[in-house]
Amino acid sequence: MKLWGGRFTKPTNQLVEEFNASILFDKELVEEDIQGSLAHVAMLGKCGILPKEDVEQISAGLKKILARVRRGEVQFSIEHEDIHMNIEKLLMDEIGSVGGKLHTGRSRNDQVALDMHLYIRRQTMELVRLLLQLQEVLLMQAEQQIDTILPGYTHLQRAQPVRFSHHLLAYASMFERDIERLVDSYKRVNTCPLGAGAIAGTTFPIDRRYVAEKLGFDRIYDNSMDAVSDRDYLVEFLSISSLIMTHLSRLSEELILWSSEEFQYIELDDAFCTGSSMMPQKKNPDIPELIRGKTGRVCGHLVSLLMTLKALPLTYNKDMQEDKEGVFDTVKTLTGSLELMAEILKTMKVNQKRMKQNVEQGFANATDLADYLVNKGIPFRKAHEIVGKLVLYCLKQEKFLLDCSLEEFQSFAPEIEQDIYDHLDPISVVEARKSEGGTAKEQVQKTLTKKKVKLAQFSDWLTSKMNKEASVNI
Amino acid sequence: MKLWGGRFTKPTNQLVEEFNASILFDKELVEEDIQGSLAHVAMLGKCGILPKEDVEQISAGLKKILARVRRGEVQFSIEHEDIHMNIEKLLMDEIGSVGGKLHTGRSRNDQVALDMHLYIRRQTMELVRLLLQLQEVLLMQAEQQIDTILPGYTHLQRAQPVRFSHHLLAYASMFERDIERLVDSYKRVNTCPLGAGAIAGTTFPIDRRYVAEKLGFDRIYDNSMDAVSDRDYLVEFLSISSLIMTHLSRLSEELILWSSEEFQYIELDDAFCTGSSMMPQKKNPDIPELIRGKTGRVCGHLVSLLMTLKALPLTYNKDMQEDKEGVFDTVKTLTGSLELMAEILKTMKVNQKRMKQNVEQGFANATDLADYLVNKGIPFRKAHEIVGKLVLYCLKQEKFLLDCSLEEFQSFAPEIEQDIYDHLDPISVVEARKSEGGTAKEQVQKTLTKKKVKLAQFSDWLTSKMNKEASVNI
Amino acid sequence: MKLWGGRFTKPTNQLVEEFNASILFDKELVEEDIQGSLAHVAMLGKCGILPKEDVEQISAGLKKILARVRRGEVQFSIEHEDIHMNIEKLLMDEIGSVGGKLHTGRSRNDQVALDMHLYIRRQTMELVRLLLQLQEVLLMQAEQQIDTILPGYTHLQRAQPVRFSHHLLAYASMFERDIERLVDSYKRVNTCPLGAGAIAGTTFPIDRRYVAEKLGFDRIYDNSMDAVSDRDYLVEFLSISSLIMTHLSRLSEELILWSSEEFQYIELDDAFCTGSSMMPQKKNPDIPELIRGKTGRVCGHLVSLLMTLKALPLTYNKDMQEDKEGVFDTVKTLTGSLELMAEILKTMKVNQKRMKQNVEQGFANATDLADYLVNKGIPFRKAHEIVGKLVLYCLKQEKFLLDCSLEEFQSFAPEIEQDIYDHLDPISVVEARKSEGGTAKEQVQKTLTKKKVKLAQFSDWLTSKMNKEASVNI
Amino acid sequence: MKLWGGRFTKPTNQLVEEFNASILFDKELVEEDIQGSLAHVAMLGKCGILPKEDVEQISAGLKKILARVRRGEVQFSIEHEDIHMNIEKLLMDEIGSVGGKLHTGRSRNDQVALDMHLYIRRQTMELVRLLLQLQEVLLMQAEQQIDTILPGYTHLQRAQPVRFSHHLLAYASMFERDIERLVDSYKRVNTCPLGAGAIAGTTFPIDRRYVAEKLGFDRIYDNSMDAVSDRDYLVEFLSISSLIMTHLSRLSEELILWSSEEFQYIELDDAFCTGSSMMPQKKNPDIPELIRGKTGRVCGHLVSLLMTLKALPLTYNKDMQEDKEGVFDTVKTLTGSLELMAEILKTMKVNQKRMKQNVEQGFANATDLADYLVNKGIPFRKAHEIVGKLVLYCLKQEKFLLDCSLEEFQSFAPEIEQDIYDHLDPISVVEARKSEGGTAKEQVQKTLTKKKVKLAQFSDWLTSKMNKEASVNI
Repeated sequence: MKLWGGRFTKPTNQLVEEFNASILFDKELVEEDIQGSLAHVAMLGKCGILPKEDVEQISAGLKKILARVRRGEVQFSIEHEDIHMNIEKLLMDEIGSVGGKLHTGRSRNDQVALDMHLYIRRQTMELVRLLLQLQEVLLMQAEQQIDTILPGYTHLQRAQPVRFSHHLLAYASMFERDIERLVDSYKRVNTCPLGAGAIAGTTFPIDRRYVAEKLGFDRIYDNSMDAVSDRDYLVEFLSISSLIMTHLSRLSEELILWSSEEFQYIELDDAFCTGSSMMPQKKNPDIPELIRGKTGRVCGHLVSLLMTLKALPLTYNKDMQEDKEGVFDTVKTLTGSLELMAEILKTMKVNQKRMKQNVEQGFANATDLADYLVNKGIPFRKAHEIVGKLVLYCLKQEKFLLDCSLEEFQSFAPEIEQDIYDHLDPISVVEARKSEGGTAKEQVQKTLTKKKVKLAQFSDWLTSKMNKEASVNI
Repeated sequence: MKLWGGRFTKPTNQLVEEFNASILFDKELVEEDIQGSLAHVAMLGKCGILPKEDVEQISAGLKKILARVRRGEVQFSIEHEDIHMNIEKLLMDEIGSVGGKLHTGRSRNDQVALDMHLYIRRQTMELVRLLLQLQEVLLMQAEQQIDTILPGYTHLQRAQPVRFSHHLLAYASMFERDIERLVDSYKRVNTCPLGAGAIAGTTFPIDRRYVAEKLGFDRIYDNSMDAVSDRDYLVEFLSISSLIMTHLSRLSEELILWSSEEFQYIELDDAFCTGSSMMPQKKNPDIPELIRGKTGRVCGHLVSLLMTLKALPLTYNKDMQEDKEGVFDTVKTLTGSLELMAEILKTMKVNQKRMKQNVEQGFANATDLADYLVNKGIPFRKAHEIVGKLVLYCLKQEKFLLDCSLEEFQSFAPEIEQDIYDHLDPISVVEARKSEGGTAKEQVQKTLTKKKVKLAQFSDWLTSKMNKEASVNI
Repeated sequence: MKLWGGRFTKPTNQLVEEFNASILFDKELVEEDIQGSLAHVAMLGKCGILPKEDVEQISAGLKKILARVRRGEVQFSIEHEDIHMNIEKLLMDEIGSVGGKLHTGRSRNDQVALDMHLYIRRQTMELVRLLLQLQEVLLMQAEQQIDTILPGYTHLQRAQPVRFSHHLLAYASMFERDIERLVDSYKRVNTCPLGAGAIAGTTFPIDRRYVAEKLGFDRIYDNSMDAVSDRDYLVEFLSISSLIMTHLSRLSEELILWSSEEFQYIELDDAFCTGSSMMPQKKNPDIPELIRGKTGRVCGHLVSLLMTLKALPLTYNKDMQEDKEGVFDTVKTLTGSLELMAEILKTMKVNQKRMKQNVEQGFANATDLADYLVNKGIPFRKAHEIVGKLVLYCLKQEKFLLDCSLEEFQSFAPEIEQDIYDHLDPISVVEARKSEGGTAKEQVQKTLTKKKVKLAQFSDWLTSKMNKEASVNI
Repeated sequence: MKLWGGRFTKPTNQLVEEFNASILFDKELVEEDIQGSLAHVAMLGKCGILPKEDVEQISAGLKKILARVRRGEVQFSIEHEDIHMNIEKLLMDEIGSVGGKLHTGRSRNDQVALDMHLYIRRQTMELVRLLLQLQEVLLMQAEQQIDTILPGYTHLQRAQPVRFSHHLLAYASMFERDIERLVDSYKRVNTCPLGAGAIAGTTFPIDRRYVAEKLGFDRIYDNSMDAVSDRDYLVEFLSISSLIMTHLSRLSEELILWSSEEFQYIELDDAFCTGSSMMPQKKNPDIPELIRGKTGRVCGHLVSLLMTLKALPLTYNKDMQEDKEGVFDTVKTLTGSLELMAEILKTMKVNQKRMKQNVEQGFANATDLADYLVNKGIPFRKAHEIVGKLVLYCLKQEKFLLDCSLEEFQSFAPEIEQDIYDHLDPISVVEARKSEGGTAKEQVQKTLTKKKVKLAQFSDWLTSKMNKEASVNI
């Protein structure tokens, strides 16, 4: 019999049971659910809504169930629909009808909102942790490869030579922003919905602040209808996750390009590649490919939730049950992707020789020739045109700029002198970009230092939040 | 040891195993995979590529494995990555190294393409079956409710009275188009990729037509690179599914509205509703809400696959492994939604009285007054304006058109005569719409007949395809 | 001739001109572009890269162009591709070849990034302004309607009575979070990319901090490759916008429901509705419908940008030009939607009588009966069951709870006494929900006060940012 | 004054006018709208609903307006909301109050549905035309490059050598399917909604078949409520378009890769590339990049429409006005992309030398060694392992398979004989893949022939449909 079945004259249809039940996925929330119930019942006791002995019995019962869950001894049932009803049923089996008092002053509507807030809070911290771990690897590689130079690309065409460190630090900047976004979202995640009841609050003299504090929340929802129907924090989590995946997809694309026989800039470790069932020579960069592919998956979950929420009237509607699976899958996807990306970057071999070769065999120093002419007083736009013509000349002659004689240079611009050869040398080209945030060594080192400072700040933030979490854990 | 591990010096990283493996979801394809292998090995024998005794041994081995799978005795392993390698491993455990001959002239790339084609072919038929079942319920209700009249709505404002049958038949038209789309897509689904090898075909003298026919395919891919990298049919399947869900979401929205205390047009059967954990009086239309919510999910899967495929160079890339889970989940979602929608429509109670009441208390007959004036020679645009003013007058007087005296009518348009009362009667209003496809009884009956004919045609199509499928089954 | 055409031997294909050019939409950025160029050239002067007289000439030229643009005298041309090249061309037409010096130490890559940052900064402030304006209307209505009571809904079924104020304040909470998100994003928006050059920084001794400050930025990008390839802030803007639209879509759905003849909770002002070309009686809630419909549009733009960015290698790729139109359209959509929603809420008529009626004719007080029993010592789960049975009894008898005699009550639970009638009175039911954030009058008033405080804080934030903006304006 | 304004007491708010009006974009439908009205009024005459002279006056008036529109003499106005009301207003200005009779037996609801059906029908044909044009270029290049061999890739790793023709024909297969899908959708597009009225049909004795035939439709909607609320054909059009863009994005990705200095497989014509504002040497593959980027745009429009339609109750809701802009933009995007892709492929230079080099410097012949061993009786799985080890040996020795001595070969597999050198030669490797649809020359030629036949069939289809269209044109 359903716990809410009083008003019904027929049992639920079997197909409905299966379609309707969320227990197959919301069992993921079992720890959060019991944690929330323990805080709720403690509050009921503190406010005199339940007598002490009931509170003790219920708490002890919940803890026993938790222990059994952790030992893998509990079977959840579809008949009891969701994690909340399953736990309540187990509790009544354990301690009898007093278990029926747990739900006093509470509804599944505020309960599930609570569980998801606790869940997302934990996952927000976990993502920050994994992003920081990835940052560390990026900074380590950036430090080690500071003297490696490769062509920087725009439009996948060689543009200007850059330090490999500089290239890696661009990704460090992206992931830094991702962490910043997670930190910003934390305050909205860490808001307590409990006490909203089904929709309008409750008639019992509860203390919402007490529960909130007990569970480590910083604020509480200040409108009960909003509390039970808000899914913003999940959309925000999926939006941030979509951006993280976008960043990972870009990095993956580069790893795949760089692993190709045409680029040969890096070699991924055997432990992170797989072979072909048919072609014995293949060593495929499966992991970056999978991460790139999984970007669609996470963005798909974002679309899914936005579409589900569109035009739902207040307050709770069953559609909202659809908020979970996509979020759980997103967590799993990001966790794996971040973990593996760090490993791959840590273990890859960098082919400095090949990178250098490609810098030399190209026109990545053409802008420097234009800048050289500007410094001789030629307006930039005119200088640009002269160099364009010179490049065209070289292409026809099948040579590069440094292969030109001084006479050749001067036939395009008489202002050019012998020192041009120094100016166009790849190292000079790189070192000339001393503008803040540029690719000259001193600038890259400065950026590295800034990133480390930021990393330390975020680590501190994480530690403080994790300590708080630990203090409220069951 | 990996079956492709010859070229590798290190074992695969453990995290990679888990992230990379598809066996946790592609085991769904076990029947298709074995079916495909049986056809492949039969062809290898027929073409003299493998000796008869090898073919027999391999076939017998595969059938034994299939039997064990069906009895639930087989454990798949993450170490062997996917369903293909797992089956091949099981085969070699079963019959020894001769099992290693199965993969002759084949790659996982064409094998997985084959499995998915077989899978989608089955699911296409299953969806057609479920849509036809839903159509039957709609037509049955349309037949029974032919004399029930309710307000037809535009902008959720009462527009003109319509037969409830007419309203239901609008949905029948939508689902009819869905079936038509599935039938159209069938020819692209039923195209055989096997024989494409990894990318370029194979050096063995295989017979692609033989395998294709053995497996019930109507055509074969005519370019091997396309065969292994085509995922169009999956996008098409998800697109059609998204439209089906869109239709179901619209119908669900109406069922939810109609079940509200404000509308009270229908009552859903207790067996298809659930209650509240807190509010004892609640009877919630969970199933339509869930179906409406799941629309986001299916569209999300469509977005996901499109994003994954974007800008992938030829041919197979690991990203493509992401094509499965969304499709499997879509099948599960649609199957459940279609099944339940049919049940709900079959068992709902229709409140004819309430519907009639709402027709009478409104201005749904205003267009008919304008048309009446047009027949008196007033241009439509002018007639429209006169009736608009009359409605405004009624609103102020808190009455409806039929409550007006003839004098009142004539003060707005002297052309109006006594017969206006007959003209504005709801039944007359409905019956006056005799244009083809309109809501007059004879027209609704004609449409019903057309729908039945179409239903029969699609049933015949389905029967013929299912017979074909049955004949190639293992 | 193209300004970059030196290296080319053929003119651009005409179709390419049209397909490639962004001037048709990026002319939207004309003010930002000139503002950025003025700051850039001032910096070139300050750093001694250009002589004072060049700086003055260029500045004067740019200002003249701006004036002409504002007077609508300028025609942009597709041949010059984008706003940057068009302005540069106009400048050279205006002041001759010295205009060619403006682009010294700069690339279109950092220039367009700058323009978009300036644009989004302005739009972020504008959205905050419009959200605050909407909040004011919500708070005003909440204040006026504090004594209006309507059924609160879950699953579109009447759940518990709530104050209409309480319902409106749920939306105020959503929009408050939207503002908070915009404020959070501001720091990422207000980061200056200029000085990144094409990709690697520049060889000129520029001062990035000087430009940044001149333009009112709080931070600068600390990696040049990131600066030119970052589109995160646009994705974030679209994500926040999608949530705003989601909130507006929910509110719109309710306005549409409430305007229906079945609900009749509100009447929208004639000035915000339209009629039908055919049906003279129609008054349609077009604006809420359009807002609801436009939610898809904004989410579509979000998907579009995420998909475009997926897997782009560093740094700039032409695909990124696709970042603008969706953003511009989103701004237009949100601006109109927020403006109109405020007007609609301000001018709608609230039908208190009808709302009250619906509260009385229903079982929205059922939870209170269960709570009453809990206070008599019955465990909540048991009380829930008893009330469920009583509701079922009433449904069969076609009566409501307050229609039952004391005997009838007691036949279900002997604990029930005469005071039950007071308890179940709608006003008592509402007033009993005194938990923080609940719907009792004192709680709603508290929440109102909190919202006003928050509104004032955000107004202060906006004023300070607008003052800053004003100080840097051209 | 609004043409529907009779029932209203206030003029429409100015902001609403702008937000609500669709004329700024639906003016795109002006030809379709007038075409539809001409057919409608002819039917009104034929059925005796309007007298002959009215019909003649109205027709003449409409034709005059059309002529003025074509001469660019007409200004549409926001006050009259949409193209339908604008035309009706112009008509009444032109011929007086008799113009008010045009709308007899018709609503904007069925009128706009008609216009969009006519529009999509034309665009479906235009897309087929452009796809056929692209096919022709692909087949021409495939014919010319039949002897060009390049590495075929999986995972962007060299897999097996293939003919460049073979690679191009994979795309021809994709576009062939796209055409097939458009042809399939044509029957749903070419269904006439006119006569459905606002929702329920009309009271006038109209002849729907007559109008339909006059306008070249093959079927009519058989339910009036479905006719006015169906937007399936637009979703289907966007789905098909999304797949076309997906195909173009994959081809674009390859063109970009192939144009890179690392691949150097092709050179795009100068006329289809652009330069950099800062870097004088740059020649960027802008067009393929833009096409790749625009894939997001089209998929975004698909999401947008699906989200807009989700959960809309029957029948017309104003949200549906949002169905147009995304569709119009999709048409523009696809038209440009298909046109330009054909031009690019036609004019690109193919670097056969470089392709050949890359075939030779790699292990693309490894599968052939495994197949060789299989033919010596070694099970494929064992052969695969042997070759894997041999590849590993070569990598360490920095040589390729053909650089090995016979002794080296035999130390891995004594079965290998002198003829192995012939077997592993790239041409032999390509020619060995004689399986149907494989990359051997005879197979590629066969496929080419098949494609040409298919192309001719589709051309015939297009011609027949275009002839039909021409016959119904105004």
